[in-house]
Amino acid sequence: MKIALAQINSIIGDIKGNSDKIISYIKAAKEKEAELIIFPELSICGYPPDDLLLQNNFVANCNQALHSIAKHCNFISAIVGCPSLNKNVFGKPFFNSAYFLNEGKIQTQIHKTLLPDYDVFDECRYFEPNNEFKLITFKNTRIALSVCEDIWFEQEKYYRHNPIHELKKLNPDLIINIAASPFHSQQPQIRFSLFSEIAKKNNAPLVYVNAVGANTDLVFDGNSCVYNTKGEIHLLCKSFEEDLQFIYTKNLNTTNYTVFPSEIENRYKALKAGVKDFFSKNNFRQAILGLSGGIDSALTLAIAADALGAENITAVLMPSKYSSEHSLSDSEKLLQHIPCKKIILPIQTTVNSAETLLFPFFENKKTDVTEENIQARIRGLLLMALANKHGYILLNTSNKSELAVGYGTLYGDLCGALSVLGDVYKTQVYELANYVNRNKEIIPQHIITKAPSAELRLDQKDSDSLPDYSVLDKILFLYIEEKKNVEQIIAEGYDENTVIRTIRMLNSSEYKRFQAPPVIRVSKKAFGRGRKIPLVAKF
Amino acid sequence: MKIALAQINSIIGDIKGNSDKIISYIKAAKEKEAELIIFPELSICGYPPDDLLLQNNFVANCNQALHSIAKHCNFISAIVGCPSLNKNVFGKPFFNSAYFLNEGKIQTQIHKTLLPDYDVFDECRYFEPNNEFKLITFKNTRIALSVCEDIWFEQEKYYRHNPIHELKKLNPDLIINIAASPFHSQQPQIRFSLFSEIAKKNNAPLVYVNAVGANTDLVFDGNSCVYNTKGEIHLLCKSFEEDLQFIYTKNLNTTNYTVFPSEIENRYKALKAGVKDFFSKNNFRQAILGLSGGIDSALTLAIAADALGAENITAVLMPSKYSSEHSLSDSEKLLQHIPCKKIILPIQTTVNSAETLLFPFFENKKTDVTEENIQARIRGLLLMALANKHGYILLNTSNKSELAVGYGTLYGDLCGALSVLGDVYKTQVYELANYVNRNKEIIPQHIITKAPSAELRLDQKDSDSLPDYSVLDKILFLYIEEKKNVEQIIAEGYDENTVIRTIRMLNSSEYKRFQAPPVIRVSKKAFGRGRKIPLVAKF
Repeated sequence: MKIALAQINSIIGDIKGNSDKIISYIKAAKEKEAELIIFPELSICGYPPDDLLLQNNFVANCNQALHSIAKHCNFISAIVGCPSLNKNVFGKPFFNSAYFLNEGKIQTQIHKTLLPDYDVFDECRYFEPNNEFKLITFKNTRIALSVCEDIWFEQEKYYRHNPIHELKKLNPDLIINIAASPFHSQQPQIRFSLFSEIAKKNNAPLVYVNAVGANTDLVFDGNSCVYNTKGEIHLLCKSFEEDLQFIYTKNLNTTNYTVFPSEIENRYKALKAGVKDFFSKNNFRQAILGLSGGIDSALTLAIAADALGAENITAVLMPSKYSSEHSLSDSEKLLQHIPCKKIILPIQTTVNSAETLLFPFFENKKTDVTEENIQARIRGLLLMALANKHGYILLNTSNKSELAVGYGTLYGDLCGALSVLGDVYKTQVYELANYVNRNKEIIPQHIITKAPSAELRLDQKDSDSLPDYSVLDKILFLYIEEKKNVEQIIAEGYDENTVIRTIRMLNSSEYKRFQAPPVIRVSKKAFGRGRKIPLVAKF
Repeated sequence: MKIALAQINSIIGDIKGNSDKIISYIKAAKEKEAELIIFPELSICGYPPDDLLLQNNFVANCNQALHSIAKHCNFISAIVGCPSLNKNVFGKPFFNSAYFLNEGKIQTQIHKTLLPDYDVFDECRYFEPNNEFKLITFKNTRIALSVCEDIWFEQEKYYRHNPIHELKKLNPDLIINIAASPFHSQQPQIRFSLFSEIAKKNNAPLVYVNAVGANTDLVFDGNSCVYNTKGEIHLLCKSFEEDLQFIYTKNLNTTNYTVFPSEIENRYKALKAGVKDFFSKNNFRQAILGLSGGIDSALTLAIAADALGAENITAVLMPSKYSSEHSLSDSEKLLQHIPCKKIILPIQTTVNSAETLLFPFFENKKTDVTEENIQARIRGLLLMALANKHGYILLNTSNKSELAVGYGTLYGDLCGALSVLGDVYKTQVYELANYVNRNKEIIPQHIITKAPSAELRLDQKDSDSLPDYSVLDKILFLYIEEKKNVEQIIAEGYDENTVIRTIRMLNSSEYKRFQAPPVIRVSKKAFGRGRKIPLVAKF
């Protein structure tokens, strides 16, 4: 049997657009004489559809679209991910289903059994789990069809039953899994070793079709693949791009192993895809950002220019009386390498105006973070004004270390429609900057080597208020990603005061992150939907 | 048996503080010779603990605290809500449990069966459901102990099994339910009629102990109560306040029916509790807010003054060249009734400074919303500067109608640590203003009767850009609360263009709400944790 893997990029909620895309892929596969084409999980409505599912008729509209798609399934069959109504009186309102379309109509459907509800997932909010197992027989092949998490039982300990175990009892010839598995930088490797095991253990090839593209915070890397019964990779689709690839089930024993991209390359591509799709799916074209002369805004600009084209970006330099000479000269040098539009707005007059107005009400209190925040907020205001006037979209340039410890001004440098680096620790920012420069210098070396500073007061350095980033990032990683507590981190050899101070900064800036822009997720624990910390709490 | 209902206000994560409170209530009940004292769901860690549960040792620390509490349970027994570890290899990591403490130690525990995962709830993220049913026998009374949602099977259609049905088979003498049931304005009535049915149907009195107090967005109204087997209310605890009440199980036939508070009174009290606990639980004392002369900021001030004391509030008047005379005079009159601190900051000079700086880069484009946003953002900046300098907390004054249609400036009037009215439609703002004035005029009548305006350009009225609030609010209610779609709302008789325009405004301002402050929830569908709409989407 000739099978097409259709790794498509759906837009959430765009039932019409996604259906049109699915139909065009069906036609393309039919031309190549494929007998079966497979689309990702919930490809008809995009993933995650969130509460759109709950709006009246949304799921009904998905199903109507599916009927139209089925009409194109003659001389080719299709597997399409689509939500379906739970018609029982009790239980969650929907199923997360894989539909088998054959001979012009919907022939059968398989519901997802394992519903992830950890980290960024909340499928139990909407879906009832499956508990009946059957194979689909097509062209004399017994297919075990499953949806995403259904093959992850071995990896996650949240579930009581293993659907693959149930399906194995039915003796399948082929395992198909449709997925919308969000990227984080370890995820591709985890996936590949899991899949290899599954194909070997069940003595059946595994065809895995994953979604691709970014939906605000979540990036899907694609990397759809086919593993043969020896646990070898037979086919690997593109990463971070749509793809249509074909296999012959009789001929899966050849291996086509290509070198997997490095973690840093994947992370870079994910960020780029995150920016690109945020703009294209919203019909935005032009971005704006503040360029401070520091490494975060430089890297953000480099990624954005790669994703959108330098000509679609406006960089704004906003020096104050505390700005160093090199903050401007380094930025100018960067702009020689990335030829985007440039605006220079010296902020001092406006800062002075606000401070003069406020001064009588400061009651002779000492200069403090208030004055620093005024500068950051004037910058935010100017960027937003330019964005509003010209229809630009403001990119936020804060990194994960800053977001973590609250080293940023709410409504100031925390402004923006999308946080590009909010899931990238400062130490990783440097790694990515070097990656950007791998072939030639794009980010000037001085930006990479100079000591980081917010330049909001005289001779300020990040290291005045924060531990060294090499230490800070490790402490943060242990707490955020590894969920260790203060005592456990100290036991790993970190200085007690530094750990306590860091975790206190982290927990007391939850209110800032609550109002921060959405963050493109590239780690296994990003700020945002996958990390829910109470705002009013004592711990 | 003499039973104490301990309706306490826990602080999330504050295991030590909550334990101390629980122990002091145990002592107080012991003094009154109660034999059993009952505390709310998860009272040891507060509700909802969210991802604090996932941090290493958090649940272990809860359990350790529980052992210390148990030591105080001599000559009195206690039921305390506390998370517990799921010691099975598979399944979610925890149970949401009710512990029975007796004779100085933990005697037994009952796990929650029905785990809500809709609207503001996401208990499936953490908890494994119970599936074993047993009674607790104490002083010859067979007690069916359950946790919150366990008695809501009849109301919600999400579940397959009814734990109360299972417990009834065991023939209990008494049903006890410990809860953390968040308030919305219909919730108390729904609860009371449900409880009455349960007590009658099962021919067993129901003792219901609910949490009280506010945790950021969620307010718990208390209203703990006891229903006798005739379905009559025997005891009703205070609403929105801690309470300790006693009953004798032999003497439940008297009814103590008091008039339930009106919906508007409940809503007002919930907002007040929301403000009060946000401050007290964070150790904040002083609030600041902008006073525009409009009804939203006037009502916010009235609620905040009631919650925190007028002396703890600073009201800032920030007139621009577009401000009407009455915007100042009405505010001044309001401040005669609410004697808080007052600051007047005319914003025009700073606005001019920013506009002069920006003008060369506006490329002769027409005046538009950009200039309006600059005013709003200067105001946000000034408020935040005063807040930063003096350690005040900024209250946001936007209402639900504005938040819904995006009639507000991100980083401008959408600034704030807490949105007081973000779940109150404009038409309800008027109702609440009249409620505030029920005994004497606090909010000047002219503020209530004048046409609403943002005063961001000459002679601007809300009605220039928005449908009448009476229509707008109904359309929004049908879409947000009732989840009807555009066609269904039009079919109810609303003007097609108005409906389409309203829903388009709603859906295209999701990005603003994403970065808005937390909203005190008083309706059955508030913006925030209970409403998850994708940011990048087409629908």
